[in-house]
Amino acid sequence: MAHINLPEGLPGIRGPMAFRPETAKPLNELAEILLRDDNNTLSRGERELIGAYVSSLNDCFFCQNVHGALAQHYLQCDMQFIDSVKQNFQLTPVSAKLKSLLAIAASVQKGGKFVTEEQIQQARAEGATDREIHDTVLIAAAFCMYNRYVDGLGTWAPQDRQVYVERASRRAAEGYIDFDLYK
Amino acid sequence: MAHINLPEGLPGIRGPMAFRPETAKPLNELAEILLRDDNNTLSRGERELIGAYVSSLNDCFFCQNVHGALAQHYLQCDMQFIDSVKQNFQLTPVSAKLKSLLAIAASVQKGGKFVTEEQIQQARAEGATDREIHDTVLIAAAFCMYNRYVDGLGTWAPQDRQVYVERASRRAAEGYIDFDLYK
Repeated sequence: MAHINLPEGLPGIRGPMAFRPETAKPLNELAEILLRDDNNTLSRGERELIGAYVSSLNDCFFCQNVHGALAQHYLQCDMQFIDSVKQNFQLTPVSAKLKSLLAIAASVQKGGKFVTEEQIQQARAEGATDREIHDTVLIAAAFCMYNRYVDGLGTWAPQDRQVYVERASRRAAEGYIDFDLYK
Repeated sequence: MAHINLPEGLPGIRGPMAFRPETAKPLNELAEILLRDDNNTLSRGERELIGAYVSSLNDCFFCQNVHGALAQHYLQCDMQFIDSVKQNFQLTPVSAKLKSLLAIAASVQKGGKFVTEEQIQQARAEGATDREIHDTVLIAAAFCMYNRYVDGLGTWAPQDRQVYVERASRRAAEGYIDFDLYK
């Protein structure tokens, strides 16, 4: 049971968002711009993968499955691939640039000061732009918020991971501004 | 020097916000609703104090001084009081309810799952409402994002803490929607 009385039947972040729509609005707008806006040289799949990876580092079941399933949808891969990225992205066949960005995201998850100049130089060497480094840092930071919001209020989440996979295409189509995203 | 090429002369979060105004908009709107909106039973001073406290736990110099100075402005206290809250809020003369909320915020800073049912019950016993608990969790979670955004990009910050104090009243008047907040 959640720590506060949330509207029933809404998993994960949907409960707190329905409880407090005033804060849900900018939270959803931030997700839409960071993760879904097509004015970005990182693909939707790459950005969702960064979010899923940070959520797994934060051990947030709901977020890592929602965004892992979205990454799977966009990247046209299977769940095993998403899980292998979470376990050790260096050993997976993602681009060298994305690996360098995932390394930065992992540092941000620990704390902003863990990002090193070497990580930045590595990302640049792999072709990452300032905008891509910026967005990686903010995506990782934002998931450190979303994950804490979801788990800090003790929300529930469907335990069958296939549920998230089945809903991903609709979520991808509807986007984050739609308040009923996570139904 | 910051990790990416940010507009010059803008300290802390202002540089990344000027670099990427599309994401600055929801980031500022979230801060405005959470910290400044008067439709809230937690005072602006209490909410800024929670933000400053979490920022100190995350060792973010810029955020803890911006928001510590705002808390100081609203609470009409001195910097020593703000520092004593950061060092050990249990020993400071803040309300028992605020102490219980600061304890929840400290758990959120570690990770969402660190919030305990005992902490929630304690907050309720001190009169905290569901909305106040919700807002405390989201403020703490949001500062885990803002702090990582500021430090993860290696931004600079004025080192003289008095600078923040002197600018607090103007910041309080202008609010967070104004993009030039931190000048």
